[in-house]
Amino acid sequence: MFRATIFTLMPEMFPGPLGTSLAGDALARGLWALETRNIRDHGLGRHRAVDDTPAGGGPGMVIRADVLAAALDAGIAADDPRPRLLMSPRGRPLTQARVRELVAGDGAIVVCGRFEGVDERVIAARHLEEISIGDYVLSGGEIAAMVLIDACVRLIPGVMGKFDSGSEESFENGLLEYPQYTRPRDWEGHAIPDVLLNGDHAKIAKWRREEAERLTKERRPDLGMKK
Amino acid sequence: MFRATIFTLMPEMFPGPLGTSLAGDALARGLWALETRNIRDHGLGRHRAVDDTPAGGGPGMVIRADVLAAALDAGIAADDPRPRLLMSPRGRPLTQARVRELVAGDGAIVVCGRFEGVDERVIAARHLEEISIGDYVLSGGEIAAMVLIDACVRLIPGVMGKFDSGSEESFENGLLEYPQYTRPRDWEGHAIPDVLLNGDHAKIAKWRREEAERLTKERRPDLGMKK
Repeated sequence: MFRATIFTLMPEMFPGPLGTSLAGDALARGLWALETRNIRDHGLGRHRAVDDTPAGGGPGMVIRADVLAAALDAGIAADDPRPRLLMSPRGRPLTQARVRELVAGDGAIVVCGRFEGVDERVIAARHLEEISIGDYVLSGGEIAAMVLIDACVRLIPGVMGKFDSGSEESFENGLLEYPQYTRPRDWEGHAIPDVLLNGDHAKIAKWRREEAERLTKERRPDLGMKK
Repeated sequence: MFRATIFTLMPEMFPGPLGTSLAGDALARGLWALETRNIRDHGLGRHRAVDDTPAGGGPGMVIRADVLAAALDAGIAADDPRPRLLMSPRGRPLTQARVRELVAGDGAIVVCGRFEGVDERVIAARHLEEISIGDYVLSGGEIAAMVLIDACVRLIPGVMGKFDSGSEESFENGLLEYPQYTRPRDWEGHAIPDVLLNGDHAKIAKWRREEAERLTKERRPDLGMKK
């Protein structure tokens, strides 16, 4: 079963959106599991300090190596086969292919940073793999972790039910998804393209493929260059 | 003031993570505003239907143009200057530059899709700009909207307070951020790099710049090619 273990300073954020809708239904049905570990439980001193100022100066605070390592060492069994991911804008970009790979495994250990970042030494010493959900900066790793987990959970067999497949979605074949239409047939003077209404499945498939290629070329010429 | 208006089928997901921590404190302090509009309030018939099967066949359900248009028309003043964003994997990728641009404006109207997508005609007729947080597929636009808003809110003046600046973060200068270290000086046999401890600010700045360039070249050679 897909198990997500989240190391965070904000455990109250979870399950949050992951406890509602598709992911929440699946969680309630036992199709995946979620647990949180509060990094602050391993904080230092009376105030349970978890961070300190950056060596060399600069704004913000950095999560201490010793504190995060203590939390990880206490919370993960040595033989846990799951990848250890650190949500970070410096990481490798998350892709749908990586999501598929994670879903095929046992889940993920997800570390959420806050402040200016995490001491580099614990990233190396505890083999954390930095992973980024996009080229922007968030206030912490928690919402990024929700993105990663939501993307995974919807692909767990049984979760999408009759909406299943996912095979014609964006990125599954290196293309953005074709345009979708539904009733009414005419709306504010705009009709659904004829080809979608004539029941010729080969023509429909051809039209969709061409539209997906056109959209991808227009909007994301870079996608073709990615593996 | 930055105002976010969310059109969603899951209004109970908000504020969710945006109501805690940095964004939540700022919301409580009145530094930004959040409102949700339930698309289902404009659903059709006794069951308030919002979606129907895709024209031309295929899995899933598509949000109807008439329903979403009715929700948007009722919920947005004609002279509202805010951009109308539709969270969608087919959209233009969100970047830190775009986040800065949004923060400089009046906020954003954010439409969250679910199911297989939204009828293409309402996207065009209501001038929705599709925006993507990354090359993967989520169960809906809600968590993506949270990502967008969190990225914006932290940059609103006064929100980060003493942690302010953001100027040395990833993407602000086309580079990933340099490695960070903090106390203790030695941890499990790993020392903080000497250069960060000698107080020579010019040398520290040079080291950080070189590390940022090295990391970016190693991990994201594509970033240099982006504007």
